Formats: sequence, structure tokens, C-alpha cells
Amino acid sequence: MARSAPYRLYYWPSIQGRGEFVRLALEEAGAPYVDVARGKGGMGQMMRLMQNAAPPPFAPPFLKHGRLIVAQTANILAYLGPRHGLAPAHQAGRLWVHQLQLTIADLVGEAHDTHHPISVNLYYEDQRAEAKKRAADFRAARLPKFLDYFERALAGSDGHYLAGARLSYADLSLFQIVAGLRYAFPRAMARQEKKHPRVVALAQRIAARKRIGAYLASPRRIAFNQDGIFRRYPALDG
Amino acid sequence: MARSAPYRLYYWPSIQGRGEFVRLALEEAGAPYVDVARGKGGMGQMMRLMQNAAPPPFAPPFLKHGRLIVAQTANILAYLGPRHGLAPAHQAGRLWVHQLQLTIADLVGEAHDTHHPISVNLYYEDQRAEAKKRAADFRAARLPKFLDYFERALAGSDGHYLAGARLSYADLSLFQIVAGLRYAFPRAMARQEKKHPRVVALAQRIAARKRIGAYLASPRRIAFNQDGIFRRYPALDG
Repeated sequence: MARSAPYRLYYWPSIQGRGEFVRLALEEAGAPYVDVARGKGGMGQMMRLMQNAAPPPFAPPFLKHGRLIVAQTANILAYLGPRHGLAPAHQAGRLWVHQLQLTIADLVGEAHDTHHPISVNLYYEDQRAEAKKRAADFRAARLPKFLDYFERALAGSDGHYLAGARLSYADLSLFQIVAGLRYAFPRAMARQEKKHPRVVALAQRIAARKRIGAYLASPRRIAFNQDGIFRRYPALDG
Repeated sequence: MARSAPYRLYYWPSIQGRGEFVRLALEEAGAPYVDVARGKGGMGQMMRLMQNAAPPPFAPPFLKHGRLIVAQTANILAYLGPRHGLAPAHQAGRLWVHQLQLTIADLVGEAHDTHHPISVNLYYEDQRAEAKKRAADFRAARLPKFLDYFERALAGSDGHYLAGARLSYADLSLFQIVAGLRYAFPRAMARQEKKHPRVVALAQRIAARKRIGAYLASPRRIAFNQDGIFRRYPALDG
């Protein structure tokens, strides 16, 4: 059956970006996958599939599994989660994990817009003044608000993870958020970490997992860089 | 059983906002619901539930159904869809409809940020210059890109709706997008409509549905206004 074929992940080959949330889930699951655009001719394959797939994805990342094509990061995770024990078995738990993932997606969008508040079609250098303003608001108001929320979610959990005693894809994604924020806003994040010990402890716990640890140490993990969602511009840190 | 209780929708009482995507689904379904914060003492109830719910919602809208509380607009719709025939019965169809909804959510965020590109904690008047720049990019690049995508999705459908012959919650949401864009960007949208006849026809088809038509004519439909996601600032239209 086609569904037993390895997953094919399509995402920009030189950044972690939104694709990284999917990579982390696949790595933790130990699921065989091809990171298509990083292979020979892969970018062309991705662009052709973007053009021709029916129904079409709006943007990478998208996942091909047999004949099925799933796009939108949170939607891909909602598909993978139950298949690999990375989402609760009951409906209320699945809705909670997906709700968390969508809140993480909102935070990802806001983190991105700190360096691109005006247009994704312009360079950072062309919107530097506006970026400085938006980043100041992000550090002062939005970042604490999101981290307070995840801290509270962990405080209310009856286990070590966001949805209780069992790991879910939202935990992996929250690890990635912490890693990204540490890269992009080292000074602001150092201050925030003191106030959010549960979030920090969760991130450590994820990094220490066997498969995730091996992945992070491997060449499959692309390093953070200045083309991704999380970028280190000292002018935007506080 | 608690699940047969009417739905309780919690959302800001004076705007359509993100709550409107949920209202449209509930209205099309003919499902009994209470728009809690619009009733007497409702705002206090909403704020208390925001504080005390476990697990907590990050922000309105959220839906209470029996003991279940679901937040994040797209997540609420993913819950309601299969319960009311507003999502396909098969997995591939459900993933497609949710993928569309998440792309609509991205567009909603970008439409909002045309008038608040720097901070949700400042007035529009305090970020007018930046808003003008962001809105120019939205009109020139982002709006056409999103509408092209939905036009292509409809062209590839084997029926009148985004997911084929049967209405889904994504169709209702796309109607709301068209209505909001017409309010906020009447000039830019008039030009776009000529290039996106399928999107326009879908919006007309939704508005003409019996329950949706009755809802739109009722006092339950809050009028567009300058506090919502879609705002009419002539300086931001082109």
C-alpha cells in the first residue's frame, strides 16, 4: 500500500523555517522520510509539485505520503501526530494539542515579522526602522505574553508535557520555539527564561531525548542562519 | 449528555473578528448557540473563563460545548465541521479543508497587520506611516497571491465548492474574506474581483444560502466597523 512509502517532505533546503516543526516530529517518530529539496534536483521537484499538485499547497512545507499531499505546518502535524503516538488518543487531547500548535504558529508569524514588518518582498535592510519598532513591541509585550501562556499550560498539566504525561508534537514545537528565540533574541530571551522555568525545562527535556539529540547533532539539522524565521540582528534584541 | 447542550461561543461582543468564522458555521448548521459576551454579564463570564479554564485558551474566540473548551478559530471549525456536515467525511478531504482554513487564517492575520504593522498595543493613528507601506505591499503582492490561490483551488474542484460538490466551513470562511476585503479595500478589491470570478461567484452563492442570508439580514450579524480585523481606512486602499 502506498501509505507505507517513506514520507516526502518538501521545504526550502537552506533554512529550518516552518519545515523544522515537521522534521522534529518525523525524527522523534523515527519515521523514514526524504527531505526532497535538499537532494539533487529536489528544488525543481518541489517547484513542479507546487505548480501541479491537485489540490495545491499555498507554500512549503508540504508532505507527500503515497498519493496524499498535506500542507500547512500545523495540518501536517495533525496528520502525523496520531500515526506516530505524538498526539493524544482522545479527541479533547487532540484538540488541545492542535490548539497549542496553532498558537505556536501565531508566535512564529510574529517572530518572523520582527524582521519583516512591512513586506516579505523587501530585504530586512529596507525595513530596518520599522523592524526596530516591531521588535521592541515583540520583546516587551508579545514574547512575554506567549511565554506566560505556555508556562501556564505546563503548570496546569498533570505531567511533564503540555498534554500530560505523554510527549506530543506541540512539545517538540515548543522546544524549537525556545531554540529559535535563543538564537534571535539572546538578551531578551535570557531575561525571559528566568520567568519561565517550566518552558525552559521542557526544552531541555526534549533536547535530551535520544532521537532528537542525535538529530540535533547530525548534518540533517540545518544551523540557524540569517535567512530563516529566527534571525540574529543585534538591533532587534534588547 | 452534556454534548447536546447548546454551544457557547466566547468572543469580543462588538466586532465580527475571528469569531465571525465560527458564527457563520454555527448559523449554516442551524446549531443552537449562545454568543456569550453579547449577553448581559457576558464579558465578565468570558474574562473569568479565560483566566480559569484548564486547559486555557490563548485568546478569544473559544467555544464551550459541555465540558469541552476549544480555542483557535481553525481548531473550532475542525471540531464543528464533521459534527454538522461542514467537512468531508474522508480524511484527505478533511485535511484539504483544514489546510484551506489555515491559509485563510494567514490571510486574516496579514489583513489585520495592514493597519497594525508595528503593534496591537498602539492605535492605528500611531503607526499610520508604516501601515501605508504594509498596505501597499498587501494590495500589490499578498492579496493577489492569496486570491490567485483560492481561484486556482476552485478551478481544480470538481464541484461548486472548494472541496467539491459539498459545502464546507472553508467556503463560508472564504465568503467572509471577500466580504471583509470589500469593506476594507473597496478600490483594490474591485480590481481583484475581475481577475477572480470563481471566488466572487462562490461568495455570492454563500450569501444566497437560506440560513446565511437570514443571518446576514439579522441583528446577530455585527456590522463591519473600525475596531475589527477589516477596517476601512482610505489611506490604505489604492
